[in-house]
Parts: sequence; C-alpha cells; structure tokens
Amino acid sequence: MDDQRTDALAANETPAERRINAILATNGERPATLMLATAESCTGGGVAARLTAVAGASDYFQGGIVAYSNEAKAKLLGVSRETLATRGAVSAECAREMAEGARHALDAAIAVSTTGIAGPGGATARKPVGLVYIAVATPEGVQAEEFHFPGGRAVITDAAAEAALLMLLRAVEGYVNG
Amino acid sequence: MDDQRTDALAANETPAERRINAILATNGERPATLMLATAESCTGGGVAARLTAVAGASDYFQGGIVAYSNEAKAKLLGVSRETLATRGAVSAECAREMAEGARHALDAAIAVSTTGIAGPGGATARKPVGLVYIAVATPEGVQAEEFHFPGGRAVITDAAAEAALLMLLRAVEGYVNG
Repeated sequence: MDDQRTDALAANETPAERRINAILATNGERPATLMLATAESCTGGGVAARLTAVAGASDYFQGGIVAYSNEAKAKLLGVSRETLATRGAVSAECAREMAEGARHALDAAIAVSTTGIAGPGGATARKPVGLVYIAVATPEGVQAEEFHFPGGRAVITDAAAEAALLMLLRAVEGYVNG
Repeated sequence: MDDQRTDALAANETPAERRINAILATNGERPATLMLATAESCTGGGVAARLTAVAGASDYFQGGIVAYSNEAKAKLLGVSRETLATRGAVSAECAREMAEGARHALDAAIAVSTTGIAGPGGATARKPVGLVYIAVATPEGVQAEEFHFPGGRAVITDAAAEAALLMLLRAVEGYVNG
C-alpha cells in the first residue's frame, strides 16, 4: 500500500510534458505514434516551450502557432471571423477552432489551444482577468474547458499552460490506450 | 556621473522584452508603431513567451510560429526544401528564411528566428550541440548571426532566447530611430 501510494504520488509529480515524452518518444525512430501541435494565445508560447524543454520532443512535436492577434488567429489557424466578432477571441468556440486549426496547419493528430485574459488589462464585465478556455482536438473531435485562474499575469499564464499540458496528456493517454 | 552610471546599469539590466515594450507599447491604441513576430525552432516558444510575459505585448506582438519539424518550417514559414536538404535546418540560410517567412505569415514589420542544436542529441561532426543561428528580418533586409552556446539543453535555449530578444531589440531601436 505504501509503495503504491508512493508510486502514484511520484507519477503525479512528474510534469505532464515528461509524461507525454515517456509515452511518445521514439528515440529518434520515425514515425512516432502520433504527432502533437499547439495553438496559443494567452500562454504566448509557454506550452510549446515546456513541451520542447524535454529532450526528444522533436520525435512527436511538429510545432505550434502563437496566435496573439485576432488576425493571426484567423489567418494562421482558420478561426472564423464570425466567431471572433460574435463570441470573441476569449471563448470556448474560439478555443475549439484554434485547436482544430493547429491540427490541420501542422498535420498533427492532437492539438491543444489556449485563449484567455491574462491581465492586468483586457477584462470586460463578462470576461474577467483569469478567464481561460483550453481546447484539445483529436481525430475524434474537439472539446473545450473553461477555467478561472486567480492571481497575476504570470501566475495565470503558468496555470493555463499547466492545465493545457494536463489536458494534452489525457488526450495522448486516451489515444494511445484506444 | 554616479547617477548616469547607475542609470546605464539599470537600463542594461532591464530585460530586452521590457525595453521593447517601453519603445512600442501604445497603451491599447492602434495602430502600433510597428508589429513584431517570431519564428522559433530550438527555443521552442521561449522567445514568444518572454515577449508576451510583459503586459501590453498585444499592442505590438502579432504572434509567432514554433516550427519544430522541417515540415512546419517549409509549410508555415516557406523555408525552401532546397535549403533544408542542402544547408540543413540548422543553418544561417534557414534562419534567414524563417525570419522572412514569419514577417510575411504574420504581417509583421520585424521578425526574429532561432534554429539550433539544443542537445543532448542531434549533433553532427560539423554541427555541435550549442550551435544556434538567429536572424532578424526587417523591411530593409534580413541578417543572421551564428552563436556557440556552452551548457546543457536549458542553458542553451535560454541563452538563445536572450540573444534573439537582444537582436530584436536592436532592430526595433534601429527602425524607430530611423
């Protein structure tokens, strides 16, 4: 019992990007089981930076798009102008379209996206600082989750990157385990 | 004299991304003086993450492309297949094409790119771990520099991101000062 608990604890303490690496790294052999991609707004490249901090990431990480402006979201990720105009860039729908867009733009099986309000500016009555949508797109579909992170800009973006990596890990585990 | 020296020291100690912000932030007013973009390989999103860690970055940062695979470099940044085949992804020519590609893909005035060998794998006889090329593209042209950074993966990617931000800062200063 103690050993099992210790193992579980250790597993949970391993950063998500290392657990993804443990599942997908091919030690240089191609093709990988599956390829990953990112589409980031509020995290600004932080998710990709954590994925690529692990040696061997090039085995399974195609790349990512940091779509900070609405123009970049539309042009590079194919987010619809209608979504941006009616739902806004910080919305579950935009997150879903960003994740789908990254899958296609980067020829990846699974992509994760982030869009939110890191603050201190940019908040509105309906969209407070700390509101973040994260979506994961797989061959089977795309799902978004809404988060409300407390704290300042750096704390919010770090928490969003952590949540995105955990959602990506769950999708990778689901894909690999069938 | 003492005050001047202190000021100079303080200015140099201010991170490049904050000095870029001080030059370009519009406090939400559009259009900005100029827009920036990134194209990252070895830094994996770290340059974009540092730029966007500063509040107000959305005033002047369009976004970036993390082109980790050769496919992404060709498809999203327009790096030529010939360059990838003959010079390789870690080359001054590839860095130049990445920076130019980011300028165009993201409709930015100035773009910075990074491509290198962060290790521990991926080195060859002619391309050791720590070899990094960084290029900056402006409306007036594109220039690449070669770096050899000592240390492990994290040290190399941090040093490359720092060098990229300093080259970007110099380009911004040159553009704004005429």
